[in-house]
Amino acid sequence: MMKSTQKIRAGILGASGYTGAEAMRLLLRHPNTEICFLTADRKAGQPVHDVYPHLGGYGLPDMISVDTAPWDDVDVVFCGLPHGTTQEIIASLPKTLKVIDLSADFRIEDPATYEEWYGHEHFAPDLQSEAVYGLTEINRDEIGNARLVACPGCYPTAVLLALMPLTSAGLIDSNDLVIDAKSGTTGAGRGLKQITLFSEAGEGLSPYSIASHRHAPEIEQEIAKSLRVPAADIRVNFVPHLVPMSRGELITGHVRLSSGKSVDDLRAEYASVYGDEPFVRLLPKGAVPQTQMVRGSNNCVLNVFEDRIPGRATIIAAIDNLVKGSSGQAVQNMNVMFGLEETTALEQAPLFP
Amino acid sequence: MMKSTQKIRAGILGASGYTGAEAMRLLLRHPNTEICFLTADRKAGQPVHDVYPHLGGYGLPDMISVDTAPWDDVDVVFCGLPHGTTQEIIASLPKTLKVIDLSADFRIEDPATYEEWYGHEHFAPDLQSEAVYGLTEINRDEIGNARLVACPGCYPTAVLLALMPLTSAGLIDSNDLVIDAKSGTTGAGRGLKQITLFSEAGEGLSPYSIASHRHAPEIEQEIAKSLRVPAADIRVNFVPHLVPMSRGELITGHVRLSSGKSVDDLRAEYASVYGDEPFVRLLPKGAVPQTQMVRGSNNCVLNVFEDRIPGRATIIAAIDNLVKGSSGQAVQNMNVMFGLEETTALEQAPLFP
Amino acid sequence: MMKSTQKIRAGILGASGYTGAEAMRLLLRHPNTEICFLTADRKAGQPVHDVYPHLGGYGLPDMISVDTAPWDDVDVVFCGLPHGTTQEIIASLPKTLKVIDLSADFRIEDPATYEEWYGHEHFAPDLQSEAVYGLTEINRDEIGNARLVACPGCYPTAVLLALMPLTSAGLIDSNDLVIDAKSGTTGAGRGLKQITLFSEAGEGLSPYSIASHRHAPEIEQEIAKSLRVPAADIRVNFVPHLVPMSRGELITGHVRLSSGKSVDDLRAEYASVYGDEPFVRLLPKGAVPQTQMVRGSNNCVLNVFEDRIPGRATIIAAIDNLVKGSSGQAVQNMNVMFGLEETTALEQAPLFP
Amino acid sequence: MMKSTQKIRAGILGASGYTGAEAMRLLLRHPNTEICFLTADRKAGQPVHDVYPHLGGYGLPDMISVDTAPWDDVDVVFCGLPHGTTQEIIASLPKTLKVIDLSADFRIEDPATYEEWYGHEHFAPDLQSEAVYGLTEINRDEIGNARLVACPGCYPTAVLLALMPLTSAGLIDSNDLVIDAKSGTTGAGRGLKQITLFSEAGEGLSPYSIASHRHAPEIEQEIAKSLRVPAADIRVNFVPHLVPMSRGELITGHVRLSSGKSVDDLRAEYASVYGDEPFVRLLPKGAVPQTQMVRGSNNCVLNVFEDRIPGRATIIAAIDNLVKGSSGQAVQNMNVMFGLEETTALEQAPLFP
Repeated sequence: MMKSTQKIRAGILGASGYTGAEAMRLLLRHPNTEICFLTADRKAGQPVHDVYPHLGGYGLPDMISVDTAPWDDVDVVFCGLPHGTTQEIIASLPKTLKVIDLSADFRIEDPATYEEWYGHEHFAPDLQSEAVYGLTEINRDEIGNARLVACPGCYPTAVLLALMPLTSAGLIDSNDLVIDAKSGTTGAGRGLKQITLFSEAGEGLSPYSIASHRHAPEIEQEIAKSLRVPAADIRVNFVPHLVPMSRGELITGHVRLSSGKSVDDLRAEYASVYGDEPFVRLLPKGAVPQTQMVRGSNNCVLNVFEDRIPGRATIIAAIDNLVKGSSGQAVQNMNVMFGLEETTALEQAPLFP
Repeated sequence: MMKSTQKIRAGILGASGYTGAEAMRLLLRHPNTEICFLTADRKAGQPVHDVYPHLGGYGLPDMISVDTAPWDDVDVVFCGLPHGTTQEIIASLPKTLKVIDLSADFRIEDPATYEEWYGHEHFAPDLQSEAVYGLTEINRDEIGNARLVACPGCYPTAVLLALMPLTSAGLIDSNDLVIDAKSGTTGAGRGLKQITLFSEAGEGLSPYSIASHRHAPEIEQEIAKSLRVPAADIRVNFVPHLVPMSRGELITGHVRLSSGKSVDDLRAEYASVYGDEPFVRLLPKGAVPQTQMVRGSNNCVLNVFEDRIPGRATIIAAIDNLVKGSSGQAVQNMNVMFGLEETTALEQAPLFP
Repeated sequence: MMKSTQKIRAGILGASGYTGAEAMRLLLRHPNTEICFLTADRKAGQPVHDVYPHLGGYGLPDMISVDTAPWDDVDVVFCGLPHGTTQEIIASLPKTLKVIDLSADFRIEDPATYEEWYGHEHFAPDLQSEAVYGLTEINRDEIGNARLVACPGCYPTAVLLALMPLTSAGLIDSNDLVIDAKSGTTGAGRGLKQITLFSEAGEGLSPYSIASHRHAPEIEQEIAKSLRVPAADIRVNFVPHLVPMSRGELITGHVRLSSGKSVDDLRAEYASVYGDEPFVRLLPKGAVPQTQMVRGSNNCVLNVFEDRIPGRATIIAAIDNLVKGSSGQAVQNMNVMFGLEETTALEQAPLFP
Repeated sequence: MMKSTQKIRAGILGASGYTGAEAMRLLLRHPNTEICFLTADRKAGQPVHDVYPHLGGYGLPDMISVDTAPWDDVDVVFCGLPHGTTQEIIASLPKTLKVIDLSADFRIEDPATYEEWYGHEHFAPDLQSEAVYGLTEINRDEIGNARLVACPGCYPTAVLLALMPLTSAGLIDSNDLVIDAKSGTTGAGRGLKQITLFSEAGEGLSPYSIASHRHAPEIEQEIAKSLRVPAADIRVNFVPHLVPMSRGELITGHVRLSSGKSVDDLRAEYASVYGDEPFVRLLPKGAVPQTQMVRGSNNCVLNVFEDRIPGRATIIAAIDNLVKGSSGQAVQNMNVMFGLEETTALEQAPLFP
């Protein structure tokens, strides 16, 4: 454990995106961390106010381009760069630097699967084998020893926290996982797209990437790993929907109970697995998770419900996609990697309404 | 067919609710209909402007209480009264009057099932046996001869338009219907509830009535009827979610294909069943239905997609809950009941953005 | 007046923008108009469904590029092209064609003022002198004889309908007009801008273009004309705000009463000027205009209120920026230009909620 | 200054309202405060989860009724009770208890003015004379010595922070203050009202309480006090608007510069007055305040702009109505009253997007 007087020096790559901004917001309140540089190539030279006015006035450094980043001045970098770019940049960094990657670049372990879903070969396959999948509650020990952590996608975070304890314990059928997912618009990032214009996304609901979302193979990989079966053995239904809200992600799992198992068994398993977790909260019986319960926080709320079809159950989990689904979990991982109290800088209660 | 110079005289009961207002909006443009009275007990004596300012200035009559309604002056009444109330009022009306009911009071055919789900015995069981379920595209002929039409719930409208052609044709498994439904806040009506306050529903997503929504038995009844099996033989999973939008309803059906059937078979069935329907539109292959495509219109858009789990498919349908899901379908039924062109007053294209 | 059996043949230029789509929506229900072609250069060859799915299925022609438009096949064109482009294209059209321009290209009469605010010299100054400012209620007679009508900006429509009767009648001080304006995001068009992303515009309020919005000189020009003073003699305060809604525009005018005049005098003037207007509605005394009252309709609702500062009044007007503020008024002008009933295709009541 | 090891024991009255919940959220992270009890009469006996699920799991005490509150166990109470109720309850409390009132009950100093605007005589006029108006930046010294602090209304907070430095310095005309204000729906509280239903408030803009909002006399009182003139000498125009967002408040001040004064003079005054303030931030020249910049934080951002009308200026300020406009400022006042660092528990950066 590091000395409490010594600060972790952090750099944020891709600070002009939403995950970069969220990392800044959280680290600004971290008593053991100092933000040393922020990169944003197209915004290089600009003060934070020009990129994120809400973060102006906090003494953050101006944006710089990634090729001028003083790597030797930091202990850890958070990477919020576009997919693909990350691999090349991380490969070029000093090997002493800890890296917490928020992109998808190191999430998929099998290079062929990566290439299939991301459209190009992996540019740093050697680093891939070093990367640890950063779902803190599940991989805490490995994360503690990792140099490179690949933070999960936002959807996989909620899905795996909700489903993996149950598939691992054999309580539900791993071959009949129907996941109906819903996300706010920040999940699509700050890039300019017609579908995320207020005029288009507002007052409406849009399913997208049906059976073709890149988070599906990531979910399948992790469930398969936990069951020690080949990734190809697990196929999940995954249908995401764009909801007219900025933050928040909720997944509705329509699952089949294993023979003889009940909803109470599932609740008991959650209580056992998550009873001591600071950020995962099993709601009281019958209480329905909503994204409103976690906004701005690193919390995940979940619960399980009877279904009208005998032998089936409905599982619901909600997170803030930018916090537990991204930068919050990244800070949580940093805390683990540096031996700090895991909740540091993440204690803020949710913002409602 | 009635003479085109003669107008249908209509009354609207419960005109202060959203479905009543929507019926006014549509009938105001109906060339063959005249709105003769509007009832709203607690608003009796008030001009329309005070109840619905957007409908002020159109020469509509003031609100009256239902017990002063001049029944002899009208040919048809639209009932948008609270559940339960409707049965007693309709039972007391002249039997010559045609009735188009927007409430749930005559949707459930089996009195025991009604009592189980609505919490009281049915007050007009004899009328119940006379009522025709008003899903126009499916029951057009019966509706044409009916005196009392029970318009479907908003969710059942979308669900049945999407699923019944497929279950009826044996293309999907009727015993594995998982329906993940999403609705805007108008689905909850104009009554004051904490959950539908802007501050509570905005920027958030709330599942509700999991496995306990009253639209579930209605869906089961109609599917069972079409398959000529007892209602108890069909059980559907039905999980609705409240979405931060006012109008719009989208259902995502996660279904299992019958052996040997493909997504193309499902598309072909839709094309066959709905090819000539004016309001149900099968989208081009791969195009995803959104509620934005139907806002303010009587249209239903639908499509079907491959799933990652072999042998499964994803079905999506979207309607405007206040139009096709309620008052629009009611006007469509009125047109059928009076021998008018079915699309009259319903031709307006959707409002987007 | 044209024969009712003969249809006006219309083309829409720039059909991929919101005003183009709204013109389609309205003209689809126009009994005397036929949509003959739709241009959208970057979408040329695409069916309407691909550009505006909500308008698919109505038999509209595919998009074409503007240089292949069959000008001889139409009687009128609606121009929803980007500012600047319009001047060159309209200048090249057959002089027999009626033109209803939705852009800002012909709104400013003085070329120097145009150049100052739009950043380039006017490309068709001769056409400018022919153009009639298309605020229907004020310029109805001129519009009836015009070949080229420049439809007002959305804000000027609401502002001028609210203020001009009062300035013209000398009831308020033309030199102390403070206009606090609010608009939904469609006012910014369908172009991709960071500020109109859902994630940025949602749950927030953004003033913009303070004292520098191009609608200010347009408002000043029209008020000055009506008072027969040089445009430079009128300067208005104009501060617009972006509101998290798609449609709707509301202006709050903070004005000074002329000596001896009262709020009742202002109401009386409105009643006199607008008493017979089909689309402008003075609300009952004390009733507050809201954008919700006009959504989807060509209506303008307005009212005037006492202020706490003696001698001042507050004027409020609301329109749907895409209808009365743009394409609805354009259709209204077409009706006037072709001698049709002015309300044709515009009778639809507002959509609420 | 209190010993850092000793905790302030706090009770929250009216904990089921939004301001109560927000006080909980903030105090949960306050290192020197302990929440000892929460009152909510109609929710007495309920756990926090049932009233505010987002605050479940933080170990907060269950709700109790106010008449069972253990007053001797606390050092300070935050009162978020309905207007009127507060006066009687506070009058009955031990006089040793510090009271931070979030209601309007002690904001208006003149009993006659209170009665005129709140519809009943003041029930605790003796306490009124003891109350200190809790606008921290302006009244910091008095607050430090106060036992009873009346926190300002949300609108007056933004208005006074923006205008008082300028009226006090004689830079703008105190007799020509036009304040066009905009608020999210939480400003209307958690009570059930038709106007704040999502279906009614969403996708729309509603002016309300024109020239009759209770915050007008409060603004006038404070400006008059600062100018040492009778309250009746100051009359402001104040027109609030309800905006479809949950949190956030923005005021647009349309003001007249004093003779010879410029926008730069106003900026200089702000810089001088607020240069060292932790929560009030003058934005860079030309940068426009938005509510998005302050969401969830205790910050106020402001700026001033040239107007097109010579001699006028536009002033814009934004706050989060539930934080700086209410519970955040209350905690800030508590810190001052107890000699703590003023920013304690309020350092969290804004939540965007």
